[in-house]
Amino acid sequence: MKPCTSGSRTSWKTDAIARGQLRAGERLPSVRTTCRVRGVSPATVFQAYGLLEAQGLIEARPRSGYFVRARRRVRGAQPTAAPAVPQATEVRVSDLSLELLQAVQDEALVPLGSAFPASHLFPFEELARCGARAMRRVRPVQVTSAGAAGDARLRYALQRRYALHGVALGADEPIITNGAMEALNLSLQAVTRPGDLVVVESPTFYAALQVLDRLGLRALEVRTDPAEGIDLEALQTLLDEHRVAACWCMTSFQNPLGALMPDARKQALVQLLSRRGVPLIEDDVYAELYGGLQRPRPAKAFDTEGWVLHCGSFSKSLAPGYRVGWAAPGRFASQVLRLKIMSSLATSLPAQLALAEFLAQGGYDRHLRGLRQALTQQREQARRLVARHFPQGTRVTHPTGGYFLWLELPPAVDALTLYRLALNEGISTAPGMLFSGDGRFTHHMRLNVGHPGDARLAPAVQRLGELAAGLAAAAAEGAGVNAGGKAGHATDRQAVAVPPPASA
Amino acid sequence: MKPCTSGSRTSWKTDAIARGQLRAGERLPSVRTTCRVRGVSPATVFQAYGLLEAQGLIEARPRSGYFVRARRRVRGAQPTAAPAVPQATEVRVSDLSLELLQAVQDEALVPLGSAFPASHLFPFEELARCGARAMRRVRPVQVTSAGAAGDARLRYALQRRYALHGVALGADEPIITNGAMEALNLSLQAVTRPGDLVVVESPTFYAALQVLDRLGLRALEVRTDPAEGIDLEALQTLLDEHRVAACWCMTSFQNPLGALMPDARKQALVQLLSRRGVPLIEDDVYAELYGGLQRPRPAKAFDTEGWVLHCGSFSKSLAPGYRVGWAAPGRFASQVLRLKIMSSLATSLPAQLALAEFLAQGGYDRHLRGLRQALTQQREQARRLVARHFPQGTRVTHPTGGYFLWLELPPAVDALTLYRLALNEGISTAPGMLFSGDGRFTHHMRLNVGHPGDARLAPAVQRLGELAAGLAAAAAEGAGVNAGGKAGHATDRQAVAVPPPASA
Repeated sequence: MKPCTSGSRTSWKTDAIARGQLRAGERLPSVRTTCRVRGVSPATVFQAYGLLEAQGLIEARPRSGYFVRARRRVRGAQPTAAPAVPQATEVRVSDLSLELLQAVQDEALVPLGSAFPASHLFPFEELARCGARAMRRVRPVQVTSAGAAGDARLRYALQRRYALHGVALGADEPIITNGAMEALNLSLQAVTRPGDLVVVESPTFYAALQVLDRLGLRALEVRTDPAEGIDLEALQTLLDEHRVAACWCMTSFQNPLGALMPDARKQALVQLLSRRGVPLIEDDVYAELYGGLQRPRPAKAFDTEGWVLHCGSFSKSLAPGYRVGWAAPGRFASQVLRLKIMSSLATSLPAQLALAEFLAQGGYDRHLRGLRQALTQQREQARRLVARHFPQGTRVTHPTGGYFLWLELPPAVDALTLYRLALNEGISTAPGMLFSGDGRFTHHMRLNVGHPGDARLAPAVQRLGELAAGLAAAAAEGAGVNAGGKAGHATDRQAVAVPPPASA
Repeated sequence: MKPCTSGSRTSWKTDAIARGQLRAGERLPSVRTTCRVRGVSPATVFQAYGLLEAQGLIEARPRSGYFVRARRRVRGAQPTAAPAVPQATEVRVSDLSLELLQAVQDEALVPLGSAFPASHLFPFEELARCGARAMRRVRPVQVTSAGAAGDARLRYALQRRYALHGVALGADEPIITNGAMEALNLSLQAVTRPGDLVVVESPTFYAALQVLDRLGLRALEVRTDPAEGIDLEALQTLLDEHRVAACWCMTSFQNPLGALMPDARKQALVQLLSRRGVPLIEDDVYAELYGGLQRPRPAKAFDTEGWVLHCGSFSKSLAPGYRVGWAAPGRFASQVLRLKIMSSLATSLPAQLALAEFLAQGGYDRHLRGLRQALTQQREQARRLVARHFPQGTRVTHPTGGYFLWLELPPAVDALTLYRLALNEGISTAPGMLFSGDGRFTHHMRLNVGHPGDARLAPAVQRLGELAAGLAAAAAEGAGVNAGGKAGHATDRQAVAVPPPASA
């Protein structure tokens, strides 16, 4: 299938769209119809529509066919002094997160809502060379008999890396997985049964809520401080009151807050849970993106009894798209391995071998140094922009690692409305309601500041601030208060922790 | 980490093992101890033990450390006229299948118990070149924003391929997954809730039982004919008697029977289920390995209402180890995609791009022609060997595709005992009890005949026959009957279908 030959097959539709014969939202003729009318095979039509979709001209909608896409303006809209405030509609977190996932695949959007850093920060050329080298050297038996636990060379490289950071993994750790997402799924499933209660942070990474949902688990959200992480006192109270099956925490540079638990609190967390025999699922995918002097130690480092199921990944630090992560599940290693075999048998070998080769030749730390520096600079730049352009009363976190900022807007500003307005102007954001099971973060949002060098960032943040100010002013006017509708300066304090939740 | 430098670190243990200082089954000193004694870092010790493990000298045992492995003789043992018959111990299917999975990773074993064909049958060199080419050409945004449904180019290649076989996939099909195993997991989860009843074939692929187990589902095993597949009458009766949530079938070259449902029966199956709104999970990973004139049509080809969740893979036909499969879930596509996002987000990109490139340059069908020819020849050769060497009363299937033979041994021969005896002589087999939830196939076994050119095959099959004959003779003597203990000739008829099961 050569794009050059297939391109011509798409021209008649491209022209039709350009000429406006097919307008945004309009349904394209069915494959069957097109086959008949054009006298071509279904394969040809699928291929043509596929290319149009790849060009962003049309989109496939589940079970209903192909539709012409609306073209979005990337920038340039004038400030809306007081935009009409649409009602925030009832939205399921998973629906909204799926919508967001689709949105951030649109290159035309300024990716402030994305979960990944800019891809130009990663050494894909070098990884491709490593992959080619490794796959040429691969012994056939490796391919058919690759252990479910993962490629031996990659596992030992990780064991060594953890050892250098003071964490001695067991002989059966790590287990290589399809990204941290699978590691977290398997780890959680290994220690829970449907209906169980699982403690998560508040706010928490929306994928955690989805994983709980998928496994039929119930979430208990615990107040989490933007600087120090999950509230241990609140957690202890919950553990006294409920039979908790597991606790899921991001101990370093938590998503979305960026919180970094101090070692003492990590140790206290592990002890608190171990005493009660409650497994800790540690999501540690951001630790390598520290802005300080050294990699924060994971809670796993303080685990003497094997109660920590530690999960990591290369997706945020080295190779997005390769989908290579791992679990170091402590005493639950054999259960996790068994679940891995039942759910996906093994992890894709080309990606594993490419990473093993890259790690073996020692380029990882050099790459990480550059990545950390770039992210640290952009975090600071973005915080300044937020302070300058967002309305009075806005609060923003001050993370020392990772690439997320968490904004608490004036209570009157509905973040979902802001999300829709911004998306309409070509800017994606992650509205706060995504990060809780009960949508309690109505006037909060997460900004991805992992795209250094993107000239669209500054104007996009400014425009976001203007839209937020407009919503704040409109609300104030609606409430009979004259707030002038002018964007004030954001206070540069840390976002306050939200009140403790009622138990699920 | 360079083996050459690390090799030396392992020599002291290698020598110790060679000198017999460390005997089979003996535990190696703990990492901590070795660090102290040798004055090296934990990383070095992990690495050294890892290399010893890779050399097959030692093995890691969950939570208990590293142990010296027993060396198995590959061949050469004299025929055992009447070996002592160990009691078949209680074994859980999943334990046994995990043991088997470990066993077939041992290159020294004759892989008659393996689930994969010989790796020399696959174009890994060419795939590696395609991968390198594709990964060099990849646009960065592809990597961070690769759709959860999979690489567009690979999806269209599959859509076209299905179209050529008369199956028009929907615009939202296929969804690329981590092998067929994930596709089957997601498909089954999309249409069931824990506690539901799911119909499977009897005998069935043991992984299906594991997936049901993992999802908290209950299996209803339906009599399946070695030639024509699942018994539609028995199925209809079950559907009348029970609330069935889904039906899982391998419609072409079923594992382990090799059964190929005729088109008419596939159509009847789809109609029977669609009338009742019961989804069909179609595991179709062997269809490309047909010995006849053309690829058998999948049940999906007869699906007019979207009730078939069709699952395929490249793992058996093109690229084992790449872990690239797909689901074409009909009306359940959006649910399956949502579950994919929640469980592993996306499928590893390097493997997808390598396969898309390989398919685009048109080498797939040429490769398949050679693969089919090799497998067909070896199926026939192996059937002749079984007929020659196995005891009287043995029955063997006559599949027209795939690479499995299913043997029904004389009732007195315990297949698990045979499995242990053979393993002890360096031959792996897949005992029949793996293929049912209640271990009913006590005197059956599956043989992998997907290793053409392996000189060890003929003597291994002969030796298996001798061991089986010995067990039959011993049982006969034990029963006071003089069976002479001599191996007779196997009847060359098809294995009879087993009686219908009591419902789970």
